[in-house]
Amino acid sequence: MRVTFLGTAAARPTVGRNVTSILVQREGDVMMFDCGEGTQRQMMRYGTGFAFSDIFFTHLHADHFLGVIGLLRTLGLQAREEPMDLWTPRGTEPLLKQAVELGVERVPFEVRINGVEVGEKVARGGYDVVPFKVSHGGKAFGWAVVEHERLGRFNAQKAREMGIPEGPLWGKLHHGEPVEVDGRVVTAAEVVGEPRLGRRLVISGDTRPCQSTREMAANADLLVHEATFAQDEAERAAHTGHSTAREAAEVAASAGVLRLVLTHFSPRYADDPRYLEKEARAVFPETTAAYDGLSIEVPFRPE
Amino acid sequence: MRVTFLGTAAARPTVGRNVTSILVQREGDVMMFDCGEGTQRQMMRYGTGFAFSDIFFTHLHADHFLGVIGLLRTLGLQAREEPMDLWTPRGTEPLLKQAVELGVERVPFEVRINGVEVGEKVARGGYDVVPFKVSHGGKAFGWAVVEHERLGRFNAQKAREMGIPEGPLWGKLHHGEPVEVDGRVVTAAEVVGEPRLGRRLVISGDTRPCQSTREMAANADLLVHEATFAQDEAERAAHTGHSTAREAAEVAASAGVLRLVLTHFSPRYADDPRYLEKEARAVFPETTAAYDGLSIEVPFRPE
Repeated sequence: MRVTFLGTAAARPTVGRNVTSILVQREGDVMMFDCGEGTQRQMMRYGTGFAFSDIFFTHLHADHFLGVIGLLRTLGLQAREEPMDLWTPRGTEPLLKQAVELGVERVPFEVRINGVEVGEKVARGGYDVVPFKVSHGGKAFGWAVVEHERLGRFNAQKAREMGIPEGPLWGKLHHGEPVEVDGRVVTAAEVVGEPRLGRRLVISGDTRPCQSTREMAANADLLVHEATFAQDEAERAAHTGHSTAREAAEVAASAGVLRLVLTHFSPRYADDPRYLEKEARAVFPETTAAYDGLSIEVPFRPE
Repeated sequence: MRVTFLGTAAARPTVGRNVTSILVQREGDVMMFDCGEGTQRQMMRYGTGFAFSDIFFTHLHADHFLGVIGLLRTLGLQAREEPMDLWTPRGTEPLLKQAVELGVERVPFEVRINGVEVGEKVARGGYDVVPFKVSHGGKAFGWAVVEHERLGRFNAQKAREMGIPEGPLWGKLHHGEPVEVDGRVVTAAEVVGEPRLGRRLVISGDTRPCQSTREMAANADLLVHEATFAQDEAERAAHTGHSTAREAAEVAASAGVLRLVLTHFSPRYADDPRYLEKEARAVFPETTAAYDGLSIEVPFRPE
């Protein structure tokens, strides 16, 4: 699983940072989270390709969705035929529909606008994309990519020693079914380890530090949390529904995540977010301040 | 008068070129012509500042206007108070209104959407901004910045020799009024030269080569003409309502302009438009292929 930051500025772009968009690749699937103005050009700049079929919106403030209009037009110019699914907090579909339909150009593929509610995960093969409520005024979500448990590790050496022939019986055991070998029943537990945790990526969207993020991020492999301001603007963060770098780090620490990436920086910090990074690391050392083009691999945990 | 190219790609951006926008500075006035997605970031990149109050749209295809949505939001974040005038071909105002009003953010300044018709120039102090019909299918304009004639040059030495005291009498003469000095009538023609031509900048917008551009560009100081394709795609240019580099050069040559700048390049030529430049120069040598960030001074003609 790979997370690529296409835009890391809050509210408006800067020379060095575009407004919000994150691309997540997992095996053959590519998902976009938010799509600020200019995202299509960021995709070209960072060579991500356009082979993706889902955009998940955290909320519809301008800096999080305006780019979808031009991006869809460009996909149309590329003669795309596959449908595109847009996922947005329920109730915000009409605005997204207005954006998608703005102008005279029509795209030659189906654009499906799906309003979702907390509790309605988007199920995929091997993982779910899960919206959760955050605290940003109005209806705003975070999104989590939650992999299913993987099968336990199959102990091939032990299976051979037990005289179980390689083939269909191994598959049955791996999937938890007992098999009979030479008149004896072998249970899965004898040759298959404990189920292994899937990976968990949590994207906070724009939010105050909140309990729902802490819960969704519990033991996450990667938490991407907004850090619009530094702690010396804590009041402003509270007033505007955003977080400080320190607050983001506190969420990461209390949720017990493996790694925290900060993003969504106010223009004041955009040129040099090391100050935010330092502030967060004092609370949670495994913190990185994102930059446009940053691409992070989220590995499986060592067993 | 200075012309800065903020975006020079046709239809969709590339890594090196954004979609269309041109900024024109004339004395204290700054005008924008078209505003494709990402224009606000181009303005930051090229340090143009945001002190301007007019955007003139050639037509409302997506790559020419989507950027206005985010740009207005950013101006709002900057606490702008001055009104902004948008000028668009009459009949296209509703679409521009939809764009401006899209989303939940409201800007704290007045945005005036002005539908204009050919023949209705936008009059400014010392110059007019003049729409003209072009051939792009649907309602599409080019725009010309046409300076008024300047007063003829005042021959101060001769005025002194004739005993005309420096002061209000000089001003009257300069503005064409006869004055009386020592009982003798001095006419303006005795001390003031011929009126001098103002400068003329013509921006074609998206168009086939057409007579109205030739007429508006007659003797222009600078013609900015689209050149989406090379001549080997002449049929495609005709089919899509665009021009080839050679066709643009033919317009420049027949209009007798001083200088031609090509822009609006198809992605095929975007990485290296020298081929287009060469094709045009064979017909009209004073041709430059624009690039993002190119800034050209349009000088007064030598007398």
